[in-house]
Amino acid sequence: MKKQYVNLNPSQLLILIFTLCIISGTILLRLPIATTNSITWVDSFFTATSAMTVTGLIVVDTPVAFTVFGEVVIAILIQLGGLGIMSFAVMIYIMLGRRIGIKERLVIKQALNQTSIGGIIKLVRNLFFFSLTVELIAMLFLSIKWIPDLGWIKGLYYSFFHAISAFNNAGFSLWSDSLMGYVGDPITNIIISGLFIIGGIGFTVLSDLWHKKKFRKLSLHSKLMIVATFAINITAMFIIFVLEYNNYNTLGSLSTLSDKLWASYFQAVTPRTAGFNTLDIGSLEEPTLFFMLILMFIGAGSGSTGGGIKLTTFIIIVLAVLTFLKGKREITIAERTISQTYILRSLAIASMGMFFIFTAIFILSITEKAPFLNVLFEVISAFGTVGLSMGLTAELSIIGKIIITLIMFIGKLGPLTLAFSLASSKDKKIKYPQEEILTG
Amino acid sequence: MKKQYVNLNPSQLLILIFTLCIISGTILLRLPIATTNSITWVDSFFTATSAMTVTGLIVVDTPVAFTVFGEVVIAILIQLGGLGIMSFAVMIYIMLGRRIGIKERLVIKQALNQTSIGGIIKLVRNLFFFSLTVELIAMLFLSIKWIPDLGWIKGLYYSFFHAISAFNNAGFSLWSDSLMGYVGDPITNIIISGLFIIGGIGFTVLSDLWHKKKFRKLSLHSKLMIVATFAINITAMFIIFVLEYNNYNTLGSLSTLSDKLWASYFQAVTPRTAGFNTLDIGSLEEPTLFFMLILMFIGAGSGSTGGGIKLTTFIIIVLAVLTFLKGKREITIAERTISQTYILRSLAIASMGMFFIFTAIFILSITEKAPFLNVLFEVISAFGTVGLSMGLTAELSIIGKIIITLIMFIGKLGPLTLAFSLASSKDKKIKYPQEEILTG
Ligand SMILES: [K+]
Ligand SMILES: [K+]
Repeated sequence: MKKQYVNLNPSQLLILIFTLCIISGTILLRLPIATTNSITWVDSFFTATSAMTVTGLIVVDTPVAFTVFGEVVIAILIQLGGLGIMSFAVMIYIMLGRRIGIKERLVIKQALNQTSIGGIIKLVRNLFFFSLTVELIAMLFLSIKWIPDLGWIKGLYYSFFHAISAFNNAGFSLWSDSLMGYVGDPITNIIISGLFIIGGIGFTVLSDLWHKKKFRKLSLHSKLMIVATFAINITAMFIIFVLEYNNYNTLGSLSTLSDKLWASYFQAVTPRTAGFNTLDIGSLEEPTLFFMLILMFIGAGSGSTGGGIKLTTFIIIVLAVLTFLKGKREITIAERTISQTYILRSLAIASMGMFFIFTAIFILSITEKAPFLNVLFEVISAFGTVGLSMGLTAELSIIGKIIITLIMFIGKLGPLTLAFSLASSKDKKIKYPQEEILTG
Repeated sequence: MKKQYVNLNPSQLLILIFTLCIISGTILLRLPIATTNSITWVDSFFTATSAMTVTGLIVVDTPVAFTVFGEVVIAILIQLGGLGIMSFAVMIYIMLGRRIGIKERLVIKQALNQTSIGGIIKLVRNLFFFSLTVELIAMLFLSIKWIPDLGWIKGLYYSFFHAISAFNNAGFSLWSDSLMGYVGDPITNIIISGLFIIGGIGFTVLSDLWHKKKFRKLSLHSKLMIVATFAINITAMFIIFVLEYNNYNTLGSLSTLSDKLWASYFQAVTPRTAGFNTLDIGSLEEPTLFFMLILMFIGAGSGSTGGGIKLTTFIIIVLAVLTFLKGKREITIAERTISQTYILRSLAIASMGMFFIFTAIFILSITEKAPFLNVLFEVISAFGTVGLSMGLTAELSIIGKIIITLIMFIGKLGPLTLAFSLASSKDKKIKYPQEEILTG
């Protein structure tokens, strides 16, 4: 019997799946059964894209505008989006020949016969099982806090929705003020942030940790991700704590030091790229917002449910620059050399990201009547599929909504498909003479 | 007789010269004879740095605050700064072994014996002669317009000052409203923009044109510079014309189409990196300002009096990304291959630029009470040594002034010294095994 093969390359397949899911979502969310009051096609399209790309930007207030049916549609889109991205990213990771332990490689080689449908289905099943397990455990912990607060049914339902939303870094919430009501609550803070950090660090890192146990034995990628995630989160927490301490619209209004610390921690980890908030984003100080812009652009880990250009892309660019400044030719870290191809790819991902961001800002600065920082924040939040907003989303013009929708789509699928497009050797045979060009 | 050698590498020498000139300028501009009313040390330091780095940002109004003595000090600093940068840049260009015609190479080889004092002096003399010739010719043309307007003495003096300021891309003006009074005047527009375009395209391009005459025979660097300068200026003019046409604080207030076109042309070419203005910058539309931000960051040509990361740096990054997207390994253009080292260097220049810009924005967003766009515009204008401002310069806090001063200094000398630091082969002998890192 002949095996069936999908007649598309993986990137095209991914884009097709996302487009189909978004179209279905748009139609479902437009049904009378999904909303309390009818919403426009643009708004349901925006919401479906925001959910499927696990962004979390909202043009209508989720708990107010949608019925339970609508909310479940959103949760399903989030789960499909997060799962789709993770599956594809892990697939790339494997196809690029990354070592993740011989044992696992065998399992995956069995499970993933190139792009055969059977292989993909098995991989997705494994990831689905993993996601579901983590989400269920988190749901139980959240119930401990939320069932006493909200009653059995609502408590369980909220735990279920937020576990999915957090693990997939989606940032959708059933509270109109996101998690501001739980700013100082340890369980909410730990479980929600734990979920999106696990979801955001990347499946390969988790798998590496699971198999190797010892830090020393981890792959370079895992080591970098773990160290950098720690370093960036601690720095961000410190900066937010200091800058917002006296801001009476944010930390200043919290009575205890414990609350202030929890809030600083949460807003430090959420821009890459969870999108929940326990403080009012629009009230943050300008330097805090600017710092968040950078975090949102960098984003989470490769092979994760998070967005942005990815932490490793950022690290490779920094290393490439440092290497050049030291006058060396090859990037080395932890006794490993990083290939030139990765530098070019990282440069391409960051540059393309900036290109789309700049184009979107340019258009929105024409169509929207809003301060420049709000526009900047909105666009980068969409590109990084973060979902934080200074409040512009709800006020967007129709063109603005369409542009942001496109940026969410590009932000979610662009870096991944670029990462997939390995620089294959299509070079012409004729070698041109080298010629120097002065720079700087 | 033993030749005398300077015991510093060229970059260190350049930084030393700039520092000494700025200190001298600071002291001279602080003298009672230099100002109408005494200015603070910080203000004279800022002004001296702005003049020496040919930026043109001003904390005090040049014609109001300074006497003729003060203005002449500023003009001398501008000439020294422009000359210093051009000399150094051309020197690098030669040291990197760039071909600029055998004839000229021989002349330069004679004139420039590595870093011997004699060689440098000869090179500077040649450049000085060239600058002076261009400036004198321009001064005569400007006099035709300005002597009838201002009388003999003032007319000549204004022509002299603005010819120096324009050729060196300094942007200092003796009118409080820069050149807004001559918004539609063809002579002013042509001569001033002609000066800063000639000064900004780079000495090597001019020398190439002078010797080769035919476009086809020019070096790759010259071809790129000429084509890109045309393309970017025409695009910018079109964008400004369209976006500002109905803005009654800018183009909308001009009565004739001719005036509108001149103004669009002038504001299109001035952000890279002349810094004069014939329209009120603070009144421009947001998309126009955002577009200017990008132009200011890119800047002028290598080996010129202009600033920014440089047009070729930008082009190489764009080419590198396009090459990657096409799946090719080597950047080729016009049947020439561009070496990997140049890509790394361009990446380093752009990244370091962004690093300093982001740091400065972060600090200024703490110290200054101003809209974010104004801060962004001010910092990028300082980094690109452009000198355009939405009006923040005069309102800067003392810390703000010091930060902007540092950014002007870094913006002027940073890209050049980075361009100079060729990645020399200091690689360790041990070759580490390559390992892949997932990006995107
Ligand atoms: K998100
Ligand atoms: K300037």
